[in-house]
Amino acid sequence: MATKPFAIIAGVGPGTGASIARQFAKAYSVICLARNPANFDPVVSEINASGGHALGISTDLSDSASVRSTFDKISQQYANSPLAAAVFNSGGGFVRKPFLELTEEEFTQGYESQGKGGYLFAKGSLPLLLKATGLAHPPTLIFTGATASLKGSANFSAFATGKFALRALAQSLAREFGPQGVHVSHVIVDGVIDIPRTKAWTFEHEDAKLDPEAIAAAYWHLHTQPRTTFAFELDLRPYVEKW
Amino acid sequence: MATKPFAIIAGVGPGTGASIARQFAKAYSVICLARNPANFDPVVSEINASGGHALGISTDLSDSASVRSTFDKISQQYANSPLAAAVFNSGGGFVRKPFLELTEEEFTQGYESQGKGGYLFAKGSLPLLLKATGLAHPPTLIFTGATASLKGSANFSAFATGKFALRALAQSLAREFGPQGVHVSHVIVDGVIDIPRTKAWTFEHEDAKLDPEAIAAAYWHLHTQPRTTFAFELDLRPYVEKW
Amino acid sequence: MATKPFAIIAGVGPGTGASIARQFAKAYSVICLARNPANFDPVVSEINASGGHALGISTDLSDSASVRSTFDKISQQYANSPLAAAVFNSGGGFVRKPFLELTEEEFTQGYESQGKGGYLFAKGSLPLLLKATGLAHPPTLIFTGATASLKGSANFSAFATGKFALRALAQSLAREFGPQGVHVSHVIVDGVIDIPRTKAWTFEHEDAKLDPEAIAAAYWHLHTQPRTTFAFELDLRPYVEKW
Amino acid sequence: MATKPFAIIAGVGPGTGASIARQFAKAYSVICLARNPANFDPVVSEINASGGHALGISTDLSDSASVRSTFDKISQQYANSPLAAAVFNSGGGFVRKPFLELTEEEFTQGYESQGKGGYLFAKGSLPLLLKATGLAHPPTLIFTGATASLKGSANFSAFATGKFALRALAQSLAREFGPQGVHVSHVIVDGVIDIPRTKAWTFEHEDAKLDPEAIAAAYWHLHTQPRTTFAFELDLRPYVEKW
Repeated sequence: MATKPFAIIAGVGPGTGASIARQFAKAYSVICLARNPANFDPVVSEINASGGHALGISTDLSDSASVRSTFDKISQQYANSPLAAAVFNSGGGFVRKPFLELTEEEFTQGYESQGKGGYLFAKGSLPLLLKATGLAHPPTLIFTGATASLKGSANFSAFATGKFALRALAQSLAREFGPQGVHVSHVIVDGVIDIPRTKAWTFEHEDAKLDPEAIAAAYWHLHTQPRTTFAFELDLRPYVEKW
Repeated sequence: MATKPFAIIAGVGPGTGASIARQFAKAYSVICLARNPANFDPVVSEINASGGHALGISTDLSDSASVRSTFDKISQQYANSPLAAAVFNSGGGFVRKPFLELTEEEFTQGYESQGKGGYLFAKGSLPLLLKATGLAHPPTLIFTGATASLKGSANFSAFATGKFALRALAQSLAREFGPQGVHVSHVIVDGVIDIPRTKAWTFEHEDAKLDPEAIAAAYWHLHTQPRTTFAFELDLRPYVEKW
Repeated sequence: MATKPFAIIAGVGPGTGASIARQFAKAYSVICLARNPANFDPVVSEINASGGHALGISTDLSDSASVRSTFDKISQQYANSPLAAAVFNSGGGFVRKPFLELTEEEFTQGYESQGKGGYLFAKGSLPLLLKATGLAHPPTLIFTGATASLKGSANFSAFATGKFALRALAQSLAREFGPQGVHVSHVIVDGVIDIPRTKAWTFEHEDAKLDPEAIAAAYWHLHTQPRTTFAFELDLRPYVEKW
Repeated sequence: MATKPFAIIAGVGPGTGASIARQFAKAYSVICLARNPANFDPVVSEINASGGHALGISTDLSDSASVRSTFDKISQQYANSPLAAAVFNSGGGFVRKPFLELTEEEFTQGYESQGKGGYLFAKGSLPLLLKATGLAHPPTLIFTGATASLKGSANFSAFATGKFALRALAQSLAREFGPQGVHVSHVIVDGVIDIPRTKAWTFEHEDAKLDPEAIAAAYWHLHTQPRTTFAFELDLRPYVEKW
């Protein structure tokens, strides 16, 4: 189906990225990006097995050559399809450490993964979003933020600099490309997500972890908003989260 | 239908309030509040005529006796129904004037309508939301904010004090009642809404006014979020809005 | 000394207000306002005894007749003196209570003291600030905020609505009167102040309470800024405060 | 004078940096850093000629080897002096361009100059600030922010990501090192500064540009705050600035 619209989800592991891919695969072909194919293979197979269309491309989101190569492939393979949505969901760059113990490499990886990674992804996807036609909803670019997008906590300097930078990028793009019809949003995920890696983490209250399927539903809602009524920012957290 | 869940929409005129009422009437009985019945009569009739259930109650949202009387009526008439959602959408208290020309009455009406109005409405609806059972979605309390919720512009001191106060109330209630399972949200409507009153207002770009149906869709999305994944705040604006 | 500039400090008790009065009395005559003269009498006496000029006027800051009467007196007694600075430092309206236990009177006192009180004080002082001439520094209007100016915590709905409203007022006035040469500022005091009432409160760390003399020094610094370089907002907290 | 305290000002040109150097030279020896000695030579000479002590060290603030070498020199030459204050005032990384025209190098220079530059400077100065003793005021680390620290405007994605990152760093350091007695602050300079480069820029109103001497006075005020009463953030703008 050459002209079925497609979506690109960058940062697909077994958690939020997979849920977003599943959600958008109900309407679109989806392309899943992650460095390690083991991260996207299960959800790509699952979507294809259940009648959807999915493709995984191994990509190092903080490496410009790798991201460029991926978008070259996409432009060739999906030359006749409009890009409906692009989601930057990279979880890279997380480190929690006293400031004076951080190496330069550790400190800068927050920015490399989030700020520069977001730049490379936006640089690749915006030209495709701008030229997309025939879509049911405005073309959409969503960035995933975190608690550290709004607050630089002690021992979080590396990750917070990256997440603050990503939010600055999202704001700047929303102001530049919104008037051109592209919906740019930033979603602040404020809490622990219920994914395989956090399965064993227990909390005083039940339902204390964010549900990735509900996060994906919020992304889909943002995507369906008409251009008269774009949301820029949304904060999501469990009902018992302290904030 | 004694046990059909119901929703209360406070501040129903021919614009956003009517759209929210229509949206929630797809699933619930809706009660529409406004001082002047002429404001809610058309949408109440429309909903009832199309197979839904709607009731209008004339209420002065900034008057405690009036609000109490309304909630007394609701508690009697809907004693066996759970309150699924309560929306405070009052547009009252707007005044734009140089500070030194404001009378005390003009200045305080921002708070009377928004801060105190929000308090009275929350005081009436929270006990019903807390005891609601058998709902498909967590009981929800949503407040409508504006540009003036985040920015005190010149000549907007009266309205901004009211909208800042309402946001403070929403935050405080979200932190107190979220852990009790009630989803409290605050939606910032940042732009001109496309309603009868603004029909004649023209802008350089098309689609430059917020669509009340799309605003209502956002409120419904918030209502459907599970307690693992509550959004507190959302900002909505047209794609060409300067911000 | 008919033409010595004067300052008005509203909300003078034995803590921050007294320190601000003492600080501004080094350069100006100071007028101290509080409902109960017992609150300002000691610092008024102290200033007068040490060669300064101070006057206390009993004023209910949330009552328009009382505030108007006070400014009438001031306008008569200081007709030939320029108003150099006006500080709104009311601590009124504080209440901490579960929302559903708040009476309407308790809830609205946050706004009465802070939002409306700030309005009445600004309404009285701005005309005097606007016509002041011959000052060493731009005429200045400073409002005292708190943690609750930025965050609506659980059980703080009454106080937070008041403090959010006061901040909205301060922003709006800064944007309207800044271009007319009046320096409007808002100071967020984020922590416990070291005053007689909190003497017995102990903390894990020493120096964990804000020093009112240091707060006053910050207010004086704001006052001395030239109009090229006005600060609007400043947050003050002890070095060990969590934020 | 081996034990006279010293201050380090990073980013010293003929504008704000020179004014800060002059201000802190009234009390301390000052070390001025800039890549090009032509930027700090005049103020270094001026301070030394007028009885103060100043030293310039050519440093590329975004290059780790260069910053490390500078701090090695400082540690040797000032081994017996306490570091009283360190100011990061780099203006690097500014670029204003449509997003899709930005090269990767242009985009990342915002972060390189501000985020990584701030990291390198903090990494060098914090160990010296932590061990400083015998000071009149708490050891202080101040970062210079800009309008772009709070708002990602269209065409400012590169600079805003850098300035947001720097603010995240400042917040994180304030929360980690405040309790250890180091005063970390972030100053938002919101407007055009009156420096040689902007001399020809004219505005509708007089005094429409920030005065670098007044900015320096604000930095000094922050430095003099006792640990009971630390300000974290301050926003400075001309009285006629729109914000």
